[in-house]
Amino acid sequence: MSLDPVDLTARLVRCASVTPEEGGALVLLAQELEQAGFSTTRIDRGGVCNLFARWGDQGANGPVLGFNGHTDVVPVGDVADWTFDPFSATIKDGFMYGRGTTDMKSGVAAFVAAAVDFVRDTPPDGSIIITITGDEEGPAKHGTVAILEWMAEHNQQMDHCLVGEPTCPETMGEMMKIGRRGSMTAYFTARGVQGHAAYPHRANNPVPAMAQLVGALSGHVLDDGTDHFDPSTLVVTTFDTGNPANNVIPAQCKTTVNIRFNDAHTADDLTTWLRRQADAVAADTGVVFDMDVSVSGESFVTPPGKLSDMVAQAVSAETGVVPEMSTSGGTSDARFVKHHCEVVEFGLVGKSMHQVDERVKVEQIGQLKAIYARFIRDYFGG
Amino acid sequence: MSLDPVDLTARLVRCASVTPEEGGALVLLAQELEQAGFSTTRIDRGGVCNLFARWGDQGANGPVLGFNGHTDVVPVGDVADWTFDPFSATIKDGFMYGRGTTDMKSGVAAFVAAAVDFVRDTPPDGSIIITITGDEEGPAKHGTVAILEWMAEHNQQMDHCLVGEPTCPETMGEMMKIGRRGSMTAYFTARGVQGHAAYPHRANNPVPAMAQLVGALSGHVLDDGTDHFDPSTLVVTTFDTGNPANNVIPAQCKTTVNIRFNDAHTADDLTTWLRRQADAVAADTGVVFDMDVSVSGESFVTPPGKLSDMVAQAVSAETGVVPEMSTSGGTSDARFVKHHCEVVEFGLVGKSMHQVDERVKVEQIGQLKAIYARFIRDYFGG
Ligand SMILES: [Zn+2]
Ligand SMILES: [Zn+2]
Repeated sequence: MSLDPVDLTARLVRCASVTPEEGGALVLLAQELEQAGFSTTRIDRGGVCNLFARWGDQGANGPVLGFNGHTDVVPVGDVADWTFDPFSATIKDGFMYGRGTTDMKSGVAAFVAAAVDFVRDTPPDGSIIITITGDEEGPAKHGTVAILEWMAEHNQQMDHCLVGEPTCPETMGEMMKIGRRGSMTAYFTARGVQGHAAYPHRANNPVPAMAQLVGALSGHVLDDGTDHFDPSTLVVTTFDTGNPANNVIPAQCKTTVNIRFNDAHTADDLTTWLRRQADAVAADTGVVFDMDVSVSGESFVTPPGKLSDMVAQAVSAETGVVPEMSTSGGTSDARFVKHHCEVVEFGLVGKSMHQVDERVKVEQIGQLKAIYARFIRDYFGG
Repeated sequence: MSLDPVDLTARLVRCASVTPEEGGALVLLAQELEQAGFSTTRIDRGGVCNLFARWGDQGANGPVLGFNGHTDVVPVGDVADWTFDPFSATIKDGFMYGRGTTDMKSGVAAFVAAAVDFVRDTPPDGSIIITITGDEEGPAKHGTVAILEWMAEHNQQMDHCLVGEPTCPETMGEMMKIGRRGSMTAYFTARGVQGHAAYPHRANNPVPAMAQLVGALSGHVLDDGTDHFDPSTLVVTTFDTGNPANNVIPAQCKTTVNIRFNDAHTADDLTTWLRRQADAVAADTGVVFDMDVSVSGESFVTPPGKLSDMVAQAVSAETGVVPEMSTSGGTSDARFVKHHCEVVEFGLVGKSMHQVDERVKVEQIGQLKAIYARFIRDYFGG
């Protein structure tokens, strides 16, 4: 008897697990996993619920394969905008509608179903660890991080891990992720000397100074890309004086700079570079620059190799499409897992994630389970 | 019997003539002027009160000397911040305190007192026209402009005019104005393509484009000054995206540019130049620039000559200081009068104007009347 990933997805979608609500999703998964012989532990911390599950004894021989995912979902917004109740998992015209159908209850259902079938039918010489967090969409302070800390304390070690986030932009199978760019945000405040527009020599206008800094930063090519990464990008997202008077030179202005950076950089190096650019403009203009930096994550990559090849083979065998090994896009919990073991990401088409009428092609859920199942077979068979 | 300019100033200050309130100030002046043989006409328009007064018949021979001033005052702000009631004209330690004491009820009182004494004691072979507006500090649409329009309709013509605004920065007598720079404001909106900070290639960020325009405008030397003017200045007073999200490239941003320009430029030429600068950045970046321009006034100058020399001589004879002939500072109603006849400006020290505890040195009021009196004598005697 095999576990139906479509049914499991639907049951998970019906759990209203908007971050940080558990909503019954982890309880449901723990039941399914325990029935299949997994031992489970709830790792709840800071108001967030997480689940650790293992098949295979801790001291046993053989490789340990991990899967990571999340059951929390982003808010639904105005329910009236949805065609169907976002927690109903209504199926229509081949699509299942609902919050979390793509991001990423179908992914979780697919790897749980694949793992449960596998250990039931062909118990491997090794272990499978499944980690599910309830805080990927939120602050992510007590989510996968908490699970990994608990695992370190309890000598739970994965050899490799697959994160089941949606990774395909348009077509099933076209893309997997072998890393992610780093992301950091710098907040600049330029402080000059206020004054009347008629007497600029008595003032020191911070606006042209900030414009000069924006020009220097925007005009700089951070790199031309690296082996596994696109070029790093720098974007100035805000620039504000908040000055209500047209005839007054403002005392200060603020700007925000977001950098998505590859493995040619670290957040520290970029911080130093930003500071130096601001210092140069300050020396030139007499305007003082304050800078605050917030780092979301460093870049990371699992260079193409045995793990990524095995995933790619499973994908192309099931879909006929050879996935691109990409490092594009935003962040995911893979940025935490990479400190623990080699990690890659593969999942279905994420187009409608976080949107109204989020939906998944029902057949893709089955396809995804088949890909994960083949990967697990290859992993323990190889 | 001579008219006391200190007492007249005090009586005017006690009229709470915050724009557009007449507050009794023009009624009071009309009484004083009529007693001295002036004929007066109220020219009220658009909720604003103005006064026209003439001594000497319209058909008479001889030159026509004009004086222009205003009795309206800016708001007092928080009365609690003032040492004395701002409409009490309290005298303490040689200063008279109150809103309008420097800007410019003392100036009006001084030239009215000088003119009244003069026509009473030595009726000249010529005429004196006194124009007082109640809307210099406001929109100035129905103030001096309305008086001048009425004068044109009624064939009232001045040969020369002295505006009694405060013109001295620190020391009595040090500066007169023979012109003013022009002033214009350009409002730019840069429109790009919004997008997520992680995918800048799908967006077109208007912020660096606007920064480029700010750099081009701020870095440009408009001129090195002209015979009678300081160099023109350009000031960027605002730059705003109003973007609440740090991870979103904004669709647009706005900036405000204020230009104070001398007689090397016209507002039209500068508008063309601004448009060309924006077009160049647009061609470079693909960002679209909208531009709105508001012109407060063109520059103007009454080149040093008979009129300004006569004022300067009167100033130096009474104060021992030779006044600089300046075109610096903001705008005044001289920008309207210059379309009618040659105009210069002289008045007392304006340091505390528009501020809390606005005050005038009492002795400077008498000095100012003496200067105006000497100027009138010289004007009709020469
Ligand atoms: Zn997700
Ligand atoms: Zn004034």
